[in-house]
Amino acid sequence: QDKYAQGFGLGSVNPDLASERQTASFSVERLTTVLDGGAEHTRVRRAVVEAIERDPVFSRENQYFQTQNERYEAAVRKAVHLQKKMHEMGWREDGPEFIYIYRALAGDVAFLLHRVFMRSISVLGSDEQVAKWIPLATKHQLIGSYAQTELGHGTYLQGLETTAVFDTTTQEFILNTPKISAMKWWPGDMGRSATHTVVFAQLYVHGKCYGVHPFIVQIRSLRDHSLCPGITAGDIGPKMNFEHIDNGYLMLQNVRIPRENMLNKFCEVQPDGTYVRRGSQKINYFTMTTLRVSLLSDEVILPLMKACTIAIRYSAVRRQSKLNPGEEEAKILDYQTQQEKLLPQLAAAYAFHFINNYLHKLFDRGYKEIQERNFSSLPELHASSSGFKAMLSQYCTAGVEICLRACGGHGYSLLSGLPSLYTKILASCIYEGENTILLLQTARFLIKCFAAASAGQPVPQSVTYLAAVKPGKCPAKNKLDFLNPDIYVEAYQHTAIRLLSSTAAKLQDLIQSGVKKHEAWNQCTVQLVQAAKAHCHYITVKNFVETVEKLENKAGIQKIMKHLCDLYALHGIFSNAGLFLHDGYISGAQMDMITASYLDLLGVIRKDAVPLVDAFDFTDKSLNSALGSYDGNVYQRLYEWAQKSPTNQQISPAYEKYLRPLLHNKLSKL
Amino acid sequence: QDKYAQGFGLGSVNPDLASERQTASFSVERLTTVLDGGAEHTRVRRAVVEAIERDPVFSRENQYFQTQNERYEAAVRKAVHLQKKMHEMGWREDGPEFIYIYRALAGDVAFLLHRVFMRSISVLGSDEQVAKWIPLATKHQLIGSYAQTELGHGTYLQGLETTAVFDTTTQEFILNTPKISAMKWWPGDMGRSATHTVVFAQLYVHGKCYGVHPFIVQIRSLRDHSLCPGITAGDIGPKMNFEHIDNGYLMLQNVRIPRENMLNKFCEVQPDGTYVRRGSQKINYFTMTTLRVSLLSDEVILPLMKACTIAIRYSAVRRQSKLNPGEEEAKILDYQTQQEKLLPQLAAAYAFHFINNYLHKLFDRGYKEIQERNFSSLPELHASSSGFKAMLSQYCTAGVEICLRACGGHGYSLLSGLPSLYTKILASCIYEGENTILLLQTARFLIKCFAAASAGQPVPQSVTYLAAVKPGKCPAKNKLDFLNPDIYVEAYQHTAIRLLSSTAAKLQDLIQSGVKKHEAWNQCTVQLVQAAKAHCHYITVKNFVETVEKLENKAGIQKIMKHLCDLYALHGIFSNAGLFLHDGYISGAQMDMITASYLDLLGVIRKDAVPLVDAFDFTDKSLNSALGSYDGNVYQRLYEWAQKSPTNQQISPAYEKYLRPLLHNKLSKL
Repeated sequence: QDKYAQGFGLGSVNPDLASERQTASFSVERLTTVLDGGAEHTRVRRAVVEAIERDPVFSRENQYFQTQNERYEAAVRKAVHLQKKMHEMGWREDGPEFIYIYRALAGDVAFLLHRVFMRSISVLGSDEQVAKWIPLATKHQLIGSYAQTELGHGTYLQGLETTAVFDTTTQEFILNTPKISAMKWWPGDMGRSATHTVVFAQLYVHGKCYGVHPFIVQIRSLRDHSLCPGITAGDIGPKMNFEHIDNGYLMLQNVRIPRENMLNKFCEVQPDGTYVRRGSQKINYFTMTTLRVSLLSDEVILPLMKACTIAIRYSAVRRQSKLNPGEEEAKILDYQTQQEKLLPQLAAAYAFHFINNYLHKLFDRGYKEIQERNFSSLPELHASSSGFKAMLSQYCTAGVEICLRACGGHGYSLLSGLPSLYTKILASCIYEGENTILLLQTARFLIKCFAAASAGQPVPQSVTYLAAVKPGKCPAKNKLDFLNPDIYVEAYQHTAIRLLSSTAAKLQDLIQSGVKKHEAWNQCTVQLVQAAKAHCHYITVKNFVETVEKLENKAGIQKIMKHLCDLYALHGIFSNAGLFLHDGYISGAQMDMITASYLDLLGVIRKDAVPLVDAFDFTDKSLNSALGSYDGNVYQRLYEWAQKSPTNQQISPAYEKYLRPLLHNKLSKL
Repeated sequence: QDKYAQGFGLGSVNPDLASERQTASFSVERLTTVLDGGAEHTRVRRAVVEAIERDPVFSRENQYFQTQNERYEAAVRKAVHLQKKMHEMGWREDGPEFIYIYRALAGDVAFLLHRVFMRSISVLGSDEQVAKWIPLATKHQLIGSYAQTELGHGTYLQGLETTAVFDTTTQEFILNTPKISAMKWWPGDMGRSATHTVVFAQLYVHGKCYGVHPFIVQIRSLRDHSLCPGITAGDIGPKMNFEHIDNGYLMLQNVRIPRENMLNKFCEVQPDGTYVRRGSQKINYFTMTTLRVSLLSDEVILPLMKACTIAIRYSAVRRQSKLNPGEEEAKILDYQTQQEKLLPQLAAAYAFHFINNYLHKLFDRGYKEIQERNFSSLPELHASSSGFKAMLSQYCTAGVEICLRACGGHGYSLLSGLPSLYTKILASCIYEGENTILLLQTARFLIKCFAAASAGQPVPQSVTYLAAVKPGKCPAKNKLDFLNPDIYVEAYQHTAIRLLSSTAAKLQDLIQSGVKKHEAWNQCTVQLVQAAKAHCHYITVKNFVETVEKLENKAGIQKIMKHLCDLYALHGIFSNAGLFLHDGYISGAQMDMITASYLDLLGVIRKDAVPLVDAFDFTDKSLNSALGSYDGNVYQRLYEWAQKSPTNQQISPAYEKYLRPLLHNKLSKL
């Protein structure tokens, strides 16, 4: 039972937490394998986690006490050691273990951009380029980075200001960051580690600009790591998290690279300066698109699952105040307000796990089509990856913050693990495309599909519902009707269509009244963002319902998942009541029924709350939380961990310098 | 014009920012004095800020690069130096300068709990106790702390587990923290600095418990700062912010203190063990109540104002993508979605500044009554301080986060100043009473008043509106009607009453159906929290309207404040649409009008956005932000500041240890 309690000499499980596990309505182990996608996956995952956590080089024990410099050094050590470990364990990059390694390391490892460097060469490089660079990179004989973002430009790539001018006489590109805002800024692994990087720059040949292209540029010597001629580079300094990563800056001053260093699978500058384009440029988007989806699990959904695990276990151990006079103090998880904070986050974590599976299937299918040179699904894939990345990262960030705050003062201690989960996941709202811009890209796709569907033209499968415009009212008569998935899925669909169609109409009206098209678009963007979110929300609810239908009801799994699905759906309506009430589809009386059913569900799921987070199967080391450990011995652990803080390891110079002169008493005691 | 640009050699104002200031519809200087409460206050404030900022001891220049130990040492240095400075400048604790000192130091100073220590002795101590301890504390011959919170108990003070047993034979109290959860945990200045502290403990005399009482306990020697016998104390380790404060833990093992060390103005243990109570215990609450209100300005509202200043100035300098094809890239502040993020926060900052003035007046009046032994306003004051502390801290925390995210990647850099504003303000949702619990206390007051008002009994002035239950519909006919304050104030009032009355009815129904009173209360708490927030929201809108009415329209002040008031009110309805639509008081068609007016207002206020933050009158040093400086030279400053990072001051040992062995090339260049 206390299989995770190790390393802190705290063996026995807190009885308050133990009792939560005795009454589970389902098999935790069974649910874990459902989440993993089968028992074999669970076995592999546990084996990887165990091997990593047993290795002291990968320890995160002192993480909360380290400076930025120490975190960086540890991350490099881990990255280098990982190669050895993989070899030792027989793990291969295309093996089943690989996907679990990063998860097991909890992200605290360097050279992730090295992988992006390799991926861009694999996707955008010619056969010769792949043959030259990939073996070097694989053997880590160079360390690569990926230099896209600039001080002055992020998501809007067309605006990048770095230039690459082709010099026919020397057959070289001359790279420059011609002004301060053109400086590359943010690329990971670049501030102190990388020897090479892929630089995105505006290509100029014979004075003509051909737009942004990728170039391989060496930035540091392989012999002594000194900066190459024309290169200025360094670390951009402290951030809210990612202390272990050397996000860097890079200035280029007349840096010359050979013609062969432009990645030229899809376009090439020939020796005489002729610019040749081959195949579709759209495939470039696909790399970014897949990246957005591939990060959801580790960077967005897992952190929410961890935060739920920590906060829910803590809430079953923390007792505070009395529910009834004369009784002992109550577990805070028994307060309705605490349930209302945490349990919707738990339901969302499950909903997002399942929508992530859906997205991966969608992308696997799309990838096959693309390999067969069928690019027709690209717009849908781009819109889906943008919308869901934005929606999930935004929701999960808010969810982690709710979990943090629900743990009161102790949640605010770094030792709870929650602050670092929060400060890290927050970045996911910004990187790989700022969320608002992504949602507007989804909205643009939806507006197009809505027009097509209204005109009876075919649209991608995920948006066929847009043709089904029907006013109507919700037919529910009592609060139990709202536990019928048909009822709430229909409500979400109706609302998604209403928001999109009313915004499309506003856009049309503005344009017809003489407002310029781009200005009209800008005037609709607040509502377009709402519409894009409503679409993603609808798909997520629908997918959860379909997932639950497909589950066999062995070991009580389907039943508890149905409860979570209902909770996720009703919480969404309760929290966005205005959207559903607006046109009367849901009446005020029905909203009262929804509220009643929603609050009832909190009580139902509360009973299984601890088993539901246990099923995520995080080890104590992976949570790295004094509040969230399996055994629930939170106060002992807070105290033991605090002892290790550097603030207790030395007498502060402040005493000798400032306090002693002040406290100039002869007496020791007043 | 560039009066704030100093210390970074960046003299000239960015033209994009300069142009924003040329078109202001009002006088910035005039608005500043309105916010300060008069030109004389502005003069004093600026003098204090200038004196503090000119003094190098108070510099925060390296704050973002320092470790927890370095931050603590700096805070102690500043606290000690402050005494000298005050003497030098002739600033007195009861002088007009005093309230600005903490603001000028931006909070980065130690020994704030020393002040709470002094305040508790002043309020709860007898004349003899005041005469003994206050002079020592004033001269800093001891350093005091305030030990209330325990590892196992925070807001629920009745549950504290520390004990103080009176020993008649020695005339001493024997203090113990009998179990790990009883350990004092969190008190500021206690981990490393304090020599004394006020300990809250359950008083036992002759085996009988008399509840929680305050005791003065010495914890460290005045001669060598070593821990006193029976004392275990230290620092609780890293937190999300407050690195400069040594939040500490304290264990007491049979610590004996003389009978005279129990603070005994209101209750006393006599030599024979007789327990005597004098006067009202309620006054104890008043200290906590006033503390909650007094922290709003510096800890809650100012951080939001700073975040708005940083994000809005940056958004007027940052250009990204194109609003219209063929034009230059647009300022991001010209995008509707960016306006919708930032301008409601700006309006809220003004709304909260004015509600803070309202609360201070309410408390000044209450304080006078209490001095005249009239305690009748205590319940209203307690409910107001609880509700507004919770509402403002929650809103401002969310607002700062929105500002941070609205600055994209650069907002995520510590150098933007936004992460530390966020991580610090977040704590205000927890300390001095956890927000949900506070809102439920407000709700309890409102439920009582609602019952009284319904029964025709008198209620405090701020809740007389509860008697005005009328169903009805909002009379607005077009979007301009919603710029009429009567219309929206009425809507807020209606909604506040509806939420309270429907929850009161639910509570009544549950009790009548046989549910136990406390359990029924628990089942209503989600809705009670909603009702309490709606009440505070209503009062804030109403107060903003009344404030605007009182402003003379000199220099365009009233006009721009009216716009902000409208924006604050309509944003609140737009964001909580469900509450207003629920019973049909606002129809769907009216909600469309509100949305239209709300979006129109964004465009109106956008024109004055930069002057509106300039009026907050923060110096560059007080913002300490590479993005928010007055001159708008954001990229230069980010680059200059990054150079100073410790990550650029040394070659990481990671190179020699891990990278060089890996990059074992003989060649320097590939």
